[in-house]
Amino acid sequence: MTQSATTNRRIVLAARPQGAPAAADFRLEQAPMPVPGDGQVLLRTLYLSLDPYMRQLMDEVPPAYAPRVELGSHMVGGTVNRVVASRHPDFKAGDLVLGNAGWQDYALSDGSDLRQLGEMAQPSLALGGLGMPAFTAYVGLLDIGQPKPGDTVVVAAATGAVGAIVGQIAKLKGARVIGIAGGADKVAFAREQLGFDVALDRHDPQLAQKLAEAAPDGIDVYFENVGGAVFDAVLPLLNIGARVPVIGVIAQYNHNGALQGPDRLPAVMSAILQKRIRMQGLVILDHYETRFDDFARDMAAWVVDGKVKLFEDVLDGLHQAPQGLIGLLQGSNFGKVVVRVATS
Amino acid sequence: MTQSATTNRRIVLAARPQGAPAAADFRLEQAPMPVPGDGQVLLRTLYLSLDPYMRQLMDEVPPAYAPRVELGSHMVGGTVNRVVASRHPDFKAGDLVLGNAGWQDYALSDGSDLRQLGEMAQPSLALGGLGMPAFTAYVGLLDIGQPKPGDTVVVAAATGAVGAIVGQIAKLKGARVIGIAGGADKVAFAREQLGFDVALDRHDPQLAQKLAEAAPDGIDVYFENVGGAVFDAVLPLLNIGARVPVIGVIAQYNHNGALQGPDRLPAVMSAILQKRIRMQGLVILDHYETRFDDFARDMAAWVVDGKVKLFEDVLDGLHQAPQGLIGLLQGSNFGKVVVRVATS
Repeated sequence: MTQSATTNRRIVLAARPQGAPAAADFRLEQAPMPVPGDGQVLLRTLYLSLDPYMRQLMDEVPPAYAPRVELGSHMVGGTVNRVVASRHPDFKAGDLVLGNAGWQDYALSDGSDLRQLGEMAQPSLALGGLGMPAFTAYVGLLDIGQPKPGDTVVVAAATGAVGAIVGQIAKLKGARVIGIAGGADKVAFAREQLGFDVALDRHDPQLAQKLAEAAPDGIDVYFENVGGAVFDAVLPLLNIGARVPVIGVIAQYNHNGALQGPDRLPAVMSAILQKRIRMQGLVILDHYETRFDDFARDMAAWVVDGKVKLFEDVLDGLHQAPQGLIGLLQGSNFGKVVVRVATS
Repeated sequence: MTQSATTNRRIVLAARPQGAPAAADFRLEQAPMPVPGDGQVLLRTLYLSLDPYMRQLMDEVPPAYAPRVELGSHMVGGTVNRVVASRHPDFKAGDLVLGNAGWQDYALSDGSDLRQLGEMAQPSLALGGLGMPAFTAYVGLLDIGQPKPGDTVVVAAATGAVGAIVGQIAKLKGARVIGIAGGADKVAFAREQLGFDVALDRHDPQLAQKLAEAAPDGIDVYFENVGGAVFDAVLPLLNIGARVPVIGVIAQYNHNGALQGPDRLPAVMSAILQKRIRMQGLVILDHYETRFDDFARDMAAWVVDGKVKLFEDVLDGLHQAPQGLIGLLQGSNFGKVVVRVATS
């Protein structure tokens, strides 16, 4: 079933996941094409972004920064859209826009959440390397991590949409970059394609020891975008004055309730104190007004100059979105995951 | 046994504590009076500061910011000293100085760690309300906590040397202050003497609920100087953008090894992320060059104007130091604990 000009396919939340989401937690439905009212824009979805935060919105208790998805409602998500029809003065049919149509073919918007993209050779990049994940990498690394030349920067999920950009920007800033990723393929990718100085496998039982060997001068910045065991290996190696931007804790999204001991918090608090660590959370929604223009200018220049390479993992067809998210949460992707819903 | 002009009493580390320190971990010894060499100053101790960090220096593995005390060596600590004899051009006999003579009557210094105090009516204040603990409160609260008028600030160990100052400065800056302290006496002290808006007993089984009632608009700054259970009550109440200066984790100093579960770290990491919390460690040694003059000027003015009240808990005689530290770690003090070793 492909996109039609008369009906709206949408993928809704069928059940709240117990732990990792499963295919049965999603349901593909058909609905009538929505009709724009006065001041509204009708959008057709070309590309849908898949991102780890989506898992959190599937829970009964959502995170602090966004409402949950209701049962029977369509899954939310960032999208690249073509304007089909407009009753809004700022948009006209044919415009290419960045929107939040979610997991569906068509959506209405009052325009307040839309950003004009102009024409782009590769519009899906507005969801990845020129969009939210890379913007997260940029603000988290530069504003919180603040790497200096010669610093050692460690990034987990190193081949993911955010991690791949973090490491490349850190290299640009003169830092030594250690990437941690799951599996030999990704380790090779991080070293060969992304150009990181060292790449380690997070499944390696000797991860802690190898990380210590790879960071003989300690770690100055740890970009936390996974949560879980990697942090345990990083913690003893953090230098005095280290910075830890916290932008994701994927490893925890599928857990329900309190975790088994031992309690790791006291050791972390002691390290924060003794090493004067600055740990700070980032939700990228906060920073569009103040930092997006800087990001867009810098990143475009870096990409044009070949200093930052962008990698996409494109799934074909809306029906692939559930499996795409499930895989993303397991770390099966290389670079930014997008769903191609339609081509034009 | 009181101070003599010919022998040097000193209290040495007799054994490394297992858990909480005990009297048997200390030993009072006598040694010959030291003789200053060229460039050295001979100091007599008038007041000795007792501080929670001392517990950490008694362990085999010391914290990152200071070396351990060796078995058989005298316990270290900040002191107010009278210069007895000087072979250093910047000091003369009779000078009153801030030093680091430790738990003993006499010590030598090369002058590099000494600060001239001039004459003070109450020289012990150089160890507390005009010294390190209050300086820690000042930098931690103002530089990391950054309270704004109307913010809700929570401080634990609210009647301790640091906490009492934190709360009073927060009030000065227009914040609403909730103090947490152990026992009814301290709760009353925090409210009546220190002027905090609310004071709660950390032993109260309904602490979490009472804290929630006392902070209907959430918590903007949590000044972490104890570690342990108070943080669990604070965490769910932290507001978006909250700041958590971490300056002490007393509750953990007496623990050895990993603690029983559940693992509290994942919930803390999630909160840091979702609420964009900034958590940052502080070791006050880092800040003397850049911030001490500001502190000394502001604090002197506040004390003179009656805006900040200073409270001391004075123990008489060097022999009381071990019990003083043991009690301090149990939270039995009101305000800054100092030992009066000699009077002039």
